[in-house]
Amino acid sequence: MKKFINKYENLIEEMVEGYVLANSDKVKRLPTERVLAYSNAPIQGKVGVITGGGSGHKPAFIGYIGKGLLDTVAVGDIFAAPPVQRCYEAIKAADGGKGVLVCIGNYSGDTMNFGMAAELAQDEGIPVEILVVNDDVASSPKDRMDNRRGVAGEVVLWKMMGALAQEGADLATLKEVGNRTIFNTRSLGVAHTPCIMPSSGKPSFQIGDDEMEIGVGHHGEPGIQRTKLMSADEVTTLITQKILEDLPFGAGDEVSVLMSGLGSTSLLEMYICYRKLHQILTDHQITIHRNYIGEFFTSMEMGGFSITLTKLDEDLKRLIDAPCDGVHLIQH
Amino acid sequence: MKKFINKYENLIEEMVEGYVLANSDKVKRLPTERVLAYSNAPIQGKVGVITGGGSGHKPAFIGYIGKGLLDTVAVGDIFAAPPVQRCYEAIKAADGGKGVLVCIGNYSGDTMNFGMAAELAQDEGIPVEILVVNDDVASSPKDRMDNRRGVAGEVVLWKMMGALAQEGADLATLKEVGNRTIFNTRSLGVAHTPCIMPSSGKPSFQIGDDEMEIGVGHHGEPGIQRTKLMSADEVTTLITQKILEDLPFGAGDEVSVLMSGLGSTSLLEMYICYRKLHQILTDHQITIHRNYIGEFFTSMEMGGFSITLTKLDEDLKRLIDAPCDGVHLIQH
Repeated sequence: MKKFINKYENLIEEMVEGYVLANSDKVKRLPTERVLAYSNAPIQGKVGVITGGGSGHKPAFIGYIGKGLLDTVAVGDIFAAPPVQRCYEAIKAADGGKGVLVCIGNYSGDTMNFGMAAELAQDEGIPVEILVVNDDVASSPKDRMDNRRGVAGEVVLWKMMGALAQEGADLATLKEVGNRTIFNTRSLGVAHTPCIMPSSGKPSFQIGDDEMEIGVGHHGEPGIQRTKLMSADEVTTLITQKILEDLPFGAGDEVSVLMSGLGSTSLLEMYICYRKLHQILTDHQITIHRNYIGEFFTSMEMGGFSITLTKLDEDLKRLIDAPCDGVHLIQH
Repeated sequence: MKKFINKYENLIEEMVEGYVLANSDKVKRLPTERVLAYSNAPIQGKVGVITGGGSGHKPAFIGYIGKGLLDTVAVGDIFAAPPVQRCYEAIKAADGGKGVLVCIGNYSGDTMNFGMAAELAQDEGIPVEILVVNDDVASSPKDRMDNRRGVAGEVVLWKMMGALAQEGADLATLKEVGNRTIFNTRSLGVAHTPCIMPSSGKPSFQIGDDEMEIGVGHHGEPGIQRTKLMSADEVTTLITQKILEDLPFGAGDEVSVLMSGLGSTSLLEMYICYRKLHQILTDHQITIHRNYIGEFFTSMEMGGFSITLTKLDEDLKRLIDAPCDGVHLIQH
């Protein structure tokens, strides 16, 4: 296993230490271990917007702490949900008197632990709502959307909700616009190389030297189609078609695009794929209102990328365009 | 070879197309193929700050086009210098009447082609100065610094010169402060996995499954020490010591840190290494004034990272802190 780490048992603690040292202007550490917060949180009179999840997806989740983004994050071990106590502390630390919106991916550990934490916080009088992102169209058929996993679309929800909370919206409004964002957001990824699990030294999934798989999850969960490696244009066409059909997106739509490298796929390749994506959307008379291209939600050094489209209305356009000042996402 | 590309011969053209489509708010393409420019360039009354070099290092070089950064970039093929005509066009397009500062890495193709292009431009009355970055301490002994390669320290020079030109400084001042920046900037990297050359499908260098190499160049050039893979703390200590001794950096110094992943090394690992780097610098009574952690100058999907330290004086602190609005570097 070729990774620059020390002892496995210290991995998360050392990462968090380095992260807080590097970003002490924007981030603080809470008394509960591995709960990180925006320096100014809780902000009185603003709904707290928070998340949490397993580690190994950097810059997600903690890279999105900051003004106009997330107030607190509960940090789990590699690919493992944070325990209830951390979720509870993250909720408490984000409450500035207007309640807290929890924005998480659809994974049983995360939804269970945040669900229990929310109950504890509600018992103390803190209003809490939970939004569960299920943008991965590969992870379940459309008629069982509730079973779909959350992937890079989570970043889109954090951006939207962070902006809306910053505007002063109340919890009910956040929930309504948040659900609209989730419904309008669809993602699909492709991977050709697994990451290596630092605990075991074993790959997160098995795949041939000339193969790729459509729809592999961020933890190496099985996808929907394994084929020989395709060209950039072929794979972009395949992924984009499946996303477009799913909502469906159509002529006249305005969308945001988020193309996230999974870890080792170069920006060079992603720009080549973006060229094709732009062509396809233009052919469908779909306008790209804003794009994000880079590494936003990774699986350590996995090879591949995901495409996330969000259909925008006037609210969502305003929110995606709003300035933010996160650790790894800055927007004027 | 697991890459998402189409035909090799179209690789750079398609990447440039995708890049310009994605960033049309900040970037425009010039009539000469593969010369990219800031939308507002040339800016009358401002010295143009430009660069150029081979492709495969994204976000370098074109990701640093933007306000307070680079005005134009001449784009070469993978790991190959841009031809003279492109360098010439990049110089011409950046001239707003105050001349042009070319900031490039110390590679024979780049220095030769930009040298010839600068002569052509000077013949037409455009004042041009060339600064050559040689920050890689592994690439030659200190008494032959002129032979050292430029690596991620180039990003630091672009940031400083972009900010200084934005302030309205003249070409002579840029040259003086630029030379100071170069002298005060030292880098060293480590790699454990090569990238695969898209032309041949062959790795950029050979290395064992349990080995790493200190000082591998951004094109796979040989380093100075090959060993068994070390822990994060060991490798960070080794690299940092060699950098500190080289200038040398010492007690009371204020520095900027740029830790750049080479392609497939995760942000998780880099934060673990940053923690150790911070510890070592603190032990040496060296203060980190500002840090950059992420992928700033890569070698496609190479595994490894580099550390760049720049000793700052009051001028350089002001310049590194100045706002900028580049495609892949935004600072408030």
